[in-house]
Amino acid sequence: MRRIAIETLTGQVRDVFVRHRTSPENASIMAENCVGAERDGASSHGLFRLRGYVDSLESGWVDGFAEPALETAGEEAGTIRVDARNGFAQPALRKAFEPSVDMARKRGVCLVTIRDSHHFGALWPDVEPFARCGLVALCFVNSITRMVPWGGHTPVYGTNPMAFAVPRLSEDPVVFDQASSAMAFGDIKLAAASGEPLPEGCAVDRDGLPTTDATAVVAGGALLPFGGHKGSSIAMMVELLCAGLTGGSFSFEVDQSGFSGAQTPRTGETLVLVDPERAGQHQFAERAEQLFSRLGAAGQERLPGDRRYTKRRQAEREGIPVDDDMLASLKALAIE
Amino acid sequence: MRRIAIETLTGQVRDVFVRHRTSPENASIMAENCVGAERDGASSHGLFRLRGYVDSLESGWVDGFAEPALETAGEEAGTIRVDARNGFAQPALRKAFEPSVDMARKRGVCLVTIRDSHHFGALWPDVEPFARCGLVALCFVNSITRMVPWGGHTPVYGTNPMAFAVPRLSEDPVVFDQASSAMAFGDIKLAAASGEPLPEGCAVDRDGLPTTDATAVVAGGALLPFGGHKGSSIAMMVELLCAGLTGGSFSFEVDQSGFSGAQTPRTGETLVLVDPERAGQHQFAERAEQLFSRLGAAGQERLPGDRRYTKRRQAEREGIPVDDDMLASLKALAIE
Repeated sequence: MRRIAIETLTGQVRDVFVRHRTSPENASIMAENCVGAERDGASSHGLFRLRGYVDSLESGWVDGFAEPALETAGEEAGTIRVDARNGFAQPALRKAFEPSVDMARKRGVCLVTIRDSHHFGALWPDVEPFARCGLVALCFVNSITRMVPWGGHTPVYGTNPMAFAVPRLSEDPVVFDQASSAMAFGDIKLAAASGEPLPEGCAVDRDGLPTTDATAVVAGGALLPFGGHKGSSIAMMVELLCAGLTGGSFSFEVDQSGFSGAQTPRTGETLVLVDPERAGQHQFAERAEQLFSRLGAAGQERLPGDRRYTKRRQAEREGIPVDDDMLASLKALAIE
Repeated sequence: MRRIAIETLTGQVRDVFVRHRTSPENASIMAENCVGAERDGASSHGLFRLRGYVDSLESGWVDGFAEPALETAGEEAGTIRVDARNGFAQPALRKAFEPSVDMARKRGVCLVTIRDSHHFGALWPDVEPFARCGLVALCFVNSITRMVPWGGHTPVYGTNPMAFAVPRLSEDPVVFDQASSAMAFGDIKLAAASGEPLPEGCAVDRDGLPTTDATAVVAGGALLPFGGHKGSSIAMMVELLCAGLTGGSFSFEVDQSGFSGAQTPRTGETLVLVDPERAGQHQFAERAEQLFSRLGAAGQERLPGDRRYTKRRQAEREGIPVDDDMLASLKALAIE
């Protein structure tokens, strides 16, 4: 295990993307995203994903050179549409960032819809920057079919996460990012790699039978929604918002056949941005602190995002811990 | 058990509201809401709530004569603010309905924030009408402190439901309405009344210990979020959207002391409305049918809302089934 400075690791990951069919501009955005997850302690969405990115790029499934296109919906609109043109979602959102912040400040609310985009990372990096601009941000992304709907027997939904961020008075934004599944597929893969059993009620095997064996899930099994029918309803909402609304694909429509090694989901993403100053009352952050204070008094020790910020601060001081296997893998990806 | 025609029952409930400090206009809206829940088979949010409404009105806690006020946020805004003026949320939303539909059609998106409102009913009646106008609607309401945050020991959140509705091509909208708690408090009350045990993991007693005894929950206990920390995060989001953003009260701020009999929560409500024609692609309903069809093929027998529509159709044909105790209670409320 070594600790590597954030900028150093970001540069190395950027070089890996550039070496594997990605434009320098997109590579910088993707490296920042990928290393940002590793920095914040989310190993399942950090360097662990790099092989999947590279294989998806090399297969021709995702276009690393894609230049996302903004579409205006007319002068009166409060919406911004982005065609990611079969590229990654993060550069598409980056391109929409400033116009959507401006729109939210002007209208009080802004809807951002991204289609034909590949999202293979964590979702909190998509909302946190909006909260740092003083906005409230709600975000959804659909993915690849891996989850059985409540009451059904065959996978339809992706893990379909939602993320939410609010600004604070003088601290880092409060941000949550949670899959509609009882577990994230990245965590199932990590469990399969380490041989750890899964909690009960999280997944089924290829025959649709409940299992705690992570390898059985990876080998043709599927996830279950969190909270039974309620998580299943949220997964449905995410599909309707991210594919139905944007013009992107439903999770079950993603067809990677013919692209050997393809791993990223080619779907869509939707964000709702609200400017509390324009939309509601003027003391949003002050009021939010009163809730957070009450949660602390009720015994809740952490707010959503706190653990990531702790890891981030440590990584900023001491570098990001990377184990030898990952370092070897990173080195291999840089020269292969 | 008798079956009573919807219009007859609505008239009787309207008369109860009018008799107990409510304007005729507000009484009509509240009767339609209350009987609509009963009609759709949601007994926990139907006639069962009438005593709570009446006691809240008689105590002076909620103003049945309140005239909600719309506030514009400027010509460029995509938001509509409503001051419910300590009245029920349903008349406030009714007043905002047409302007917000117009706004969503103009902007592609509209945010509606309601403050100082009492919401004591089901949430799906708030979103279904928007879907019948071709809009996608997402709605949140916070309530009275009854739920312990994940990792905490003292109640902070209300049951904090969210509801979501989308239009269909030629059928009733798909609508879900779900509490952030593992169970709705109305259902806990019904279980307490009938003596039925609760499922595991839904609630704690007054000492914060897990229990399946519904009466122990009603007597000073509290609910638990659905899906552990994920449901808890959603409950937090609902508080921030419905109180922080609107200027309404957090659930934990609702103080009914001095109003003997008060039951309704004096909080806030927030809706996000999207016009799929303006915000995204033009075949939303067609695309949504493809998802619903896939869900059916995957073994999901019902879509969210289906069971309510079945009950509704039956009630429209045969009347709403009301048992003798409820009839006696209704009669008493009409003359007391």
